[in-house]
Amino acid sequence: MPDIPTHTYAIETLRDFSTRVFLHYGLTSEDARLAADVLVASDLRGIESHGIARLWAYARLLEEPDVNPRPELSVVRETATTATVDGNGGLGLVVGPKANQIAIEKAADVGTGWVAVRRSNHFGIAGYYPQMALAHDMIGWSMTNCSPHVVPLWGIEPRLGTNPIAVAFPAGKERPIVIDMSTSVVAGGKIEIARRGGQNVPDGWLIDREGRPTNSPEALFENGCLLPLGGDYDHGGHKGYCLAAMVDLLCGVLSGADWGPFVSAFATSSLAGRSREGSGWGHFFGAMRIDAFCDPGEFKERVDKWIVTMRGTRPAPGTNGPIIPGDPEHEAEVERTKNGVPLTLPVIESLHKVARRTGVAFDDAPAHR
Amino acid sequence: MPDIPTHTYAIETLRDFSTRVFLHYGLTSEDARLAADVLVASDLRGIESHGIARLWAYARLLEEPDVNPRPELSVVRETATTATVDGNGGLGLVVGPKANQIAIEKAADVGTGWVAVRRSNHFGIAGYYPQMALAHDMIGWSMTNCSPHVVPLWGIEPRLGTNPIAVAFPAGKERPIVIDMSTSVVAGGKIEIARRGGQNVPDGWLIDREGRPTNSPEALFENGCLLPLGGDYDHGGHKGYCLAAMVDLLCGVLSGADWGPFVSAFATSSLAGRSREGSGWGHFFGAMRIDAFCDPGEFKERVDKWIVTMRGTRPAPGTNGPIIPGDPEHEAEVERTKNGVPLTLPVIESLHKVARRTGVAFDDAPAHR
Repeated sequence: MPDIPTHTYAIETLRDFSTRVFLHYGLTSEDARLAADVLVASDLRGIESHGIARLWAYARLLEEPDVNPRPELSVVRETATTATVDGNGGLGLVVGPKANQIAIEKAADVGTGWVAVRRSNHFGIAGYYPQMALAHDMIGWSMTNCSPHVVPLWGIEPRLGTNPIAVAFPAGKERPIVIDMSTSVVAGGKIEIARRGGQNVPDGWLIDREGRPTNSPEALFENGCLLPLGGDYDHGGHKGYCLAAMVDLLCGVLSGADWGPFVSAFATSSLAGRSREGSGWGHFFGAMRIDAFCDPGEFKERVDKWIVTMRGTRPAPGTNGPIIPGDPEHEAEVERTKNGVPLTLPVIESLHKVARRTGVAFDDAPAHR
Repeated sequence: MPDIPTHTYAIETLRDFSTRVFLHYGLTSEDARLAADVLVASDLRGIESHGIARLWAYARLLEEPDVNPRPELSVVRETATTATVDGNGGLGLVVGPKANQIAIEKAADVGTGWVAVRRSNHFGIAGYYPQMALAHDMIGWSMTNCSPHVVPLWGIEPRLGTNPIAVAFPAGKERPIVIDMSTSVVAGGKIEIARRGGQNVPDGWLIDREGRPTNSPEALFENGCLLPLGGDYDHGGHKGYCLAAMVDLLCGVLSGADWGPFVSAFATSSLAGRSREGSGWGHFFGAMRIDAFCDPGEFKERVDKWIVTMRGTRPAPGTNGPIIPGDPEHEAEVERTKNGVPLTLPVIESLHKVARRTGVAFDDAPAHR
């Protein structure tokens, strides 16, 4: 990759600007802060594709008539351990944390809690949610469906989203284990980054509209598709398809949200599903109390040993050896909390566009360079 | 693959023989029938690596002093929605179904049920268990850890098993969706099959003991390792590692079973963990009542539409288009129920070895040819 020029902003600058933009669109101050927290958590953790670079898209979303700046979540069905939540067309960044909180409360009551959500939209990084459970000594889960860009194996039309799965486990002296992964070979963000840089992508990521393998990131924007994790059959592409299917069935089909090819594009009305199959994007959250299964202190000791054991594996040639899920994001968080978040010039320009459109001032002076 | 000579046996012949072998080793008649049912379900569904071809290994397992032919499962901790079960050193083929039944009963009571199991061993095909939930209009889950043959990405020592995940969803007029997948590029069984046939394996499956890519299936038996689903970093090998880690943490670390590199080999004593980190192999089962989230009739209609939609995707060149998870296994089951199960000569010879060792007669006359 060529060295792309950036300016660096303090995380608080980005959080404050996002909060004020969300306030401008009519969110309550509590919800605006919540949405901004989810959004910039992504920048903080180094997942730039899902952070403030998308504030422009969220702003456009809030201008859609179906998107509700003041959603009242309702539980449409529940048991002691489950709920199906209607997000009332609210921003996913608000609906997500509130629905996940219901899962955590149910887990506190009866050991585990599981919440399916409909009438939502993009909820930010999946990894934000299971981390909410960690503070309660719980294992957290989250999944979401999203706009279709991925083929089912042996198909050449987009039928599934990159449908991420996130799971987090508390540790003791070590850092928690935080898994956050799309179920396609790569997330769409990596294609966008290659496209912006004018670069080709590796073999095995993309097919064009006729199903031919391609290295051109443009293909994704010309009716091409991402391949599921694994790629071809010989390398387990059916398994990536299975995982994406599982996420879609739990998030979309179980909740009554849109599913598969009917999930709307990111920044368009999320409730006018293309076929009226369901309503909005769907999520699925889970929380499991550790002490519902074993002594939490003993569990954390074992997780610490697990981490040390994996790190101690003999390294592959040319590598420093295995890392632990969540390591890169944690390192980014430490570094960026201290030194700020680097933004590229097009992202900075998109923030100025948001500022001009909303009248909310964006502090142009980078905190650091 | 060359055409390997086989004889074909009626499924009842294999089930009866397995049942009588398990009875010989002291299982109760109920447990012997249960274990045989799990075992031959694998042959019926075309997953030959995990079926009667392993009866010899289960027989050896039952000769180990730590393996208990008459286990009494105990719940060592529980909540309304969870349990941790001690398998008492019983055969995984017996412990698995009984522990899974506890998850189903808890789901019937409170909406969902989640059971972590320790002091077990190999439980057959993961896909057997979530199918038990289907009859109750539940979504079923199962996972197990197993002997280490897989590297964490960037490592070159075996630290994780092929750690499968299985999830099943009921449908309406269509067949249920049954996901059953190892979290490595391929399951170990495919390496064994290539080795028996004297064939090379594709690029991206295996590394040798020095971490070099290899096409020789022998490598796996000479301290080489399988790669996690995804293979290298560019193609998502970190995601396969994350999934294998999740399974190991839920099955091994949460339950108090052995985990990671400490899980014993298949046919050796499962309770003498190599480092006393835990005890036996671990499993994790889940069951979620559909009506805890939505109307089951509406859910099944949506699943039917989901299936038809995926099948209707434009096919990739040279394929018949996407299939649905569980299709190949269902087709095998229909065909083999009618026409019997083809066994290779080495597998038949292993059954004769079991017969000679136990004195249990094996009906040598194939039912069909």
